[in-house]
Amino acid sequence: MKTILSSKTKEVVIERGKGTVIIGERINPTGKKALAQALLNGDLEVLRQEAIRQIEAGAEVLEVNVGAAGVDEVAVLPAAVKIVAEVSYLPLSIDSSNPDALAAALEVYEGKALVNSVTGEEHSLVKVLPLIKKYNAAVIGLCMDDNGIPEDVEGRVKIATKIIERATEIGIPQEDIIIDCLAMTVSSNTQAAVITLETLAAVRDKLGNNTVLGASNVSFGLPERKCIHLAFFPMVIHEGLSAIIADPTVQPIRRVIRASDLLMGYDEWATNYLKDYREYGPTI
Amino acid sequence: MKTILSSKTKEVVIERGKGTVIIGERINPTGKKALAQALLNGDLEVLRQEAIRQIEAGAEVLEVNVGAAGVDEVAVLPAAVKIVAEVSYLPLSIDSSNPDALAAALEVYEGKALVNSVTGEEHSLVKVLPLIKKYNAAVIGLCMDDNGIPEDVEGRVKIATKIIERATEIGIPQEDIIIDCLAMTVSSNTQAAVITLETLAAVRDKLGNNTVLGASNVSFGLPERKCIHLAFFPMVIHEGLSAIIADPTVQPIRRVIRASDLLMGYDEWATNYLKDYREYGPTI
Repeated sequence: MKTILSSKTKEVVIERGKGTVIIGERINPTGKKALAQALLNGDLEVLRQEAIRQIEAGAEVLEVNVGAAGVDEVAVLPAAVKIVAEVSYLPLSIDSSNPDALAAALEVYEGKALVNSVTGEEHSLVKVLPLIKKYNAAVIGLCMDDNGIPEDVEGRVKIATKIIERATEIGIPQEDIIIDCLAMTVSSNTQAAVITLETLAAVRDKLGNNTVLGASNVSFGLPERKCIHLAFFPMVIHEGLSAIIADPTVQPIRRVIRASDLLMGYDEWATNYLKDYREYGPTI
Repeated sequence: MKTILSSKTKEVVIERGKGTVIIGERINPTGKKALAQALLNGDLEVLRQEAIRQIEAGAEVLEVNVGAAGVDEVAVLPAAVKIVAEVSYLPLSIDSSNPDALAAALEVYEGKALVNSVTGEEHSLVKVLPLIKKYNAAVIGLCMDDNGIPEDVEGRVKIATKIIERATEIGIPQEDIIIDCLAMTVSSNTQAAVITLETLAAVRDKLGNNTVLGASNVSFGLPERKCIHLAFFPMVIHEGLSAIIADPTVQPIRRVIRASDLLMGYDEWATNYLKDYREYGPTI
């Protein structure tokens, strides 16, 4: 299944078995005081710098999230999308839980965006899916609903199935829905990553949709979180993950993602791995 | 299935699902000129240092290999085993393709050793298996035979099955055979790691034996091989690998192995991961 994203000038194809697409996560004020303050001050120059930095570090899609206390997302999100699109030829992933902000951002975006996210919650399905249809976007579907995040694989797959059904009912093609199987922290539940891994396999085998994950939750509360991400990414890629939300400027994360693709047989003659090495040199 | 190894004073249990046992690989002259020369000169002091270094770095079993051009393994291997056992309370993995050297080393070893290795080749089965039985050792069975290393999963599982059958016929318990599914280099065959991963799954599901792997071959001929190993180890642990032959002094390899165990649900309350962090601090 192919999810095609685009900017004004560039197309990016997300497809299982063709190499993991890296979605750069740095434009997000969560846990970043300076960025949150800049957004509050209306200083969007920093977004430009973060975009360039991530392009140079090998990001293939850029996420844009401006959600911070006091920020008027409906005004700031479209402005941020415009500014990032000025310096970036990459497709964007527009990240907000506010449907009005998503609508305003999609209105100004030129190309086919990824929207992060719709959930199985009724209010989300009703508000977000029509936007995806109207603006011909792709969307990340989170495996959670009005009852929260299921602790079991079956519950998560059921929500993914519901999101896909509701989307296709209004004419959104199935390939435009990427499922986020969600990773909870292993420090509070020893089985947390196992549930994620098994959900990835179930979505791959039963639904066929592309899948995406961020890793930040899985390592929450533990020291040297980067080592947990270094272990997590190869495992989820091994279960057929199609795209990863990560910080491409943190090494050796990107190199290990490329190595994972190589080991999975996605990278004939190690072309991409060697290109990464030629371009960036040693990482550790 | 439990494979129990022991030194004079310590028992180590290898068991799928209980955490990956790290077999320290540094006492091996392959590709190490200084070590090869020291062995030729009969200077075994360096083995003592390598043993201590690996114990301090978290190895749980130590491999001892003295195979280099000009070295009389039948004389040197038992001497090496004795010296390493003097400074190490860890069980040893005695590594040689020379059955006479294995016999001499097993004769002096106190405890239950691991022998690396027997293959499906007729001369190996006939010479090595009786030694395993006689000295009550455990053995690594390599998935290769007189026709070489099969390129397909079925061929490798067939050889593993043959080794197990031949061993149990002479009274070696099945749990004392650990299967090495073999990893070939991905730079010459894009499917090389996939075959290894699928063989691991097949041995786990069809035979149930513990499995072991070294990683050095998989990355042969590629730059920044450590990043390929960092991607490979979580994937093989995800397929149920029980023990890994690696260099515990190279970071963040050991930390990422511990993180992999944590993600697989083997490490309740992250006890081992946190212990590793407390003992060794940040690794990258």
